[in-house]
Amino acid sequence: SADTAHRLALAARSCGYELQTIGVPKTIDNDLPFTDHSPGYGSAARFLALATMDSTLNTVSIPWHYPVKVIETMGRDAGWLAASSALGKRHDNDPPHIILMPEHVFKADNFLKQVEAVYRSIGYVIVVASEAVRDEKGQPLGTARQTGEDAFQHPLLTGAAQHLVELVIQHLNLRARFEKPGDLQRMSSTCISRTDQDEAYLVGQAAIQALLQGESDKMVTLVRHTEPAYYCSTGLVELAKIANAQQLMPAHYLNENKTMVTQAFYDYALPLIGPSLPDHAKLEKTKVQL
Amino acid sequence: SADTAHRLALAARSCGYELQTIGVPKTIDNDLPFTDHSPGYGSAARFLALATMDSTLNTVSIPWHYPVKVIETMGRDAGWLAASSALGKRHDNDPPHIILMPEHVFKADNFLKQVEAVYRSIGYVIVVASEAVRDEKGQPLGTARQTGEDAFQHPLLTGAAQHLVELVIQHLNLRARFEKPGDLQRMSSTCISRTDQDEAYLVGQAAIQALLQGESDKMVTLVRHTEPAYYCSTGLVELAKIANAQQLMPAHYLNENKTMVTQAFYDYALPLIGPSLPDHAKLEKTKVQL
Repeated sequence: SADTAHRLALAARSCGYELQTIGVPKTIDNDLPFTDHSPGYGSAARFLALATMDSTLNTVSIPWHYPVKVIETMGRDAGWLAASSALGKRHDNDPPHIILMPEHVFKADNFLKQVEAVYRSIGYVIVVASEAVRDEKGQPLGTARQTGEDAFQHPLLTGAAQHLVELVIQHLNLRARFEKPGDLQRMSSTCISRTDQDEAYLVGQAAIQALLQGESDKMVTLVRHTEPAYYCSTGLVELAKIANAQQLMPAHYLNENKTMVTQAFYDYALPLIGPSLPDHAKLEKTKVQL
Repeated sequence: SADTAHRLALAARSCGYELQTIGVPKTIDNDLPFTDHSPGYGSAARFLALATMDSTLNTVSIPWHYPVKVIETMGRDAGWLAASSALGKRHDNDPPHIILMPEHVFKADNFLKQVEAVYRSIGYVIVVASEAVRDEKGQPLGTARQTGEDAFQHPLLTGAAQHLVELVIQHLNLRARFEKPGDLQRMSSTCISRTDQDEAYLVGQAAIQALLQGESDKMVTLVRHTEPAYYCSTGLVELAKIANAQQLMPAHYLNENKTMVTQAFYDYALPLIGPSLPDHAKLEKTKVQL
């Protein structure tokens, strides 16, 4: 981590050991400050956008089976990954319909009202929840319900998605299920963003160049340019500024009730995930008159 | 289902209603008899082969974090999907190391001995378990441990993978975690097998041709040819023979202790999943002498 790299640089300096330390950003969580984004995020975001489009087709085609589906994403305290699930959304009715972000307190009443409204409107609801969504007491969802232990006295596994499914079943009496794409978010080779891959090489090259120029105790950053089209150059920032700091989702990337992304987020994230996402064909479902 | 199609054909015949019924095979479970395989299986098998290769890289690179990982697949009573997780395996040490099939009774002692042996040999263990693996009493793994209820009096969610993880933690004192790729097995657009896609069109075309030839109460089958290279033609079989029958994994597709596939399974399944799978680069981890 940036913190470890910084400590290493300090330790080397304090004992006069000749060591240069240059960090490179790398996290699917995209929560490092001072860099426009981090290598890893673009591919994980592409995966989640595609996984949301694909894995909800079942709900969309036979909503009466399980009209409510919750997908739980990684991302720790930052909602970048949860937000990326919307990158394949073209129309209001496309999934996801509700995104629950760790940056904003979860209120069960608001959530249930919103689920019910979407269900009444289109007959099914796709919710994406970050693993770290917290309630008004600051407790991650699901931990409050770890009332039981298994046969080995381990706390029973639960989490945000399972908690939300139970809420929906209990209060709205709708069939609901959840999914956790898990480690594939971090490692799916089928969703690598070419842009992300190129930028991973770019930050590595910049780190070597910085070392050759005698720099130390710094991290490479990605600097975004938009003219004539999206591209990144690199910069350097002191590791001390990065260590233990977090870049959360800024407020203007979310709508008023904080459960859907805005055009500003699409403008930020779409260039990072590589080629345009496919658009799944939709049948018109027109009844034939004989 | 084939059963529904058959009943429909019988009902139409019994009341003299002019209706032809032709079924097409379609299931990722690959458990329909009389057809060499079913459209859907090739793509789901490709997904599971790639997902196993990809999502275990974390365990392979830092095994001390979670040395045991269990991946739970779909497949109901048939192990075709669980078996497909091995299609990217080139060497004995490549994941998966143990596959638990629904066709064979799970014995905890044998399982734990095998996990321990692999762990001692290479330092980590990847297990793939079918959702329907059963113990000696015929109970699906995990159901026996549904001792608790959540705050809403629903049985706590558990399953084969969670049960296996608990066994490993309790008896071998190894850190373990599990993953369920879930609906992505059925719907990932990023892993569509070209062969599978082509054969889906083929059975659809054959169904139309059969209808035009006046056939009814039958299902299209895929018939495999291997000369000069793999290809399929189609046949027809009576729906009555298909309805409620299951094609399980034949014994010679599994090794002696029934926890790994044989070359005969690779010969069967590899043509179905489309282009060759990638081979992830491996570092030699040679220590540099200064």
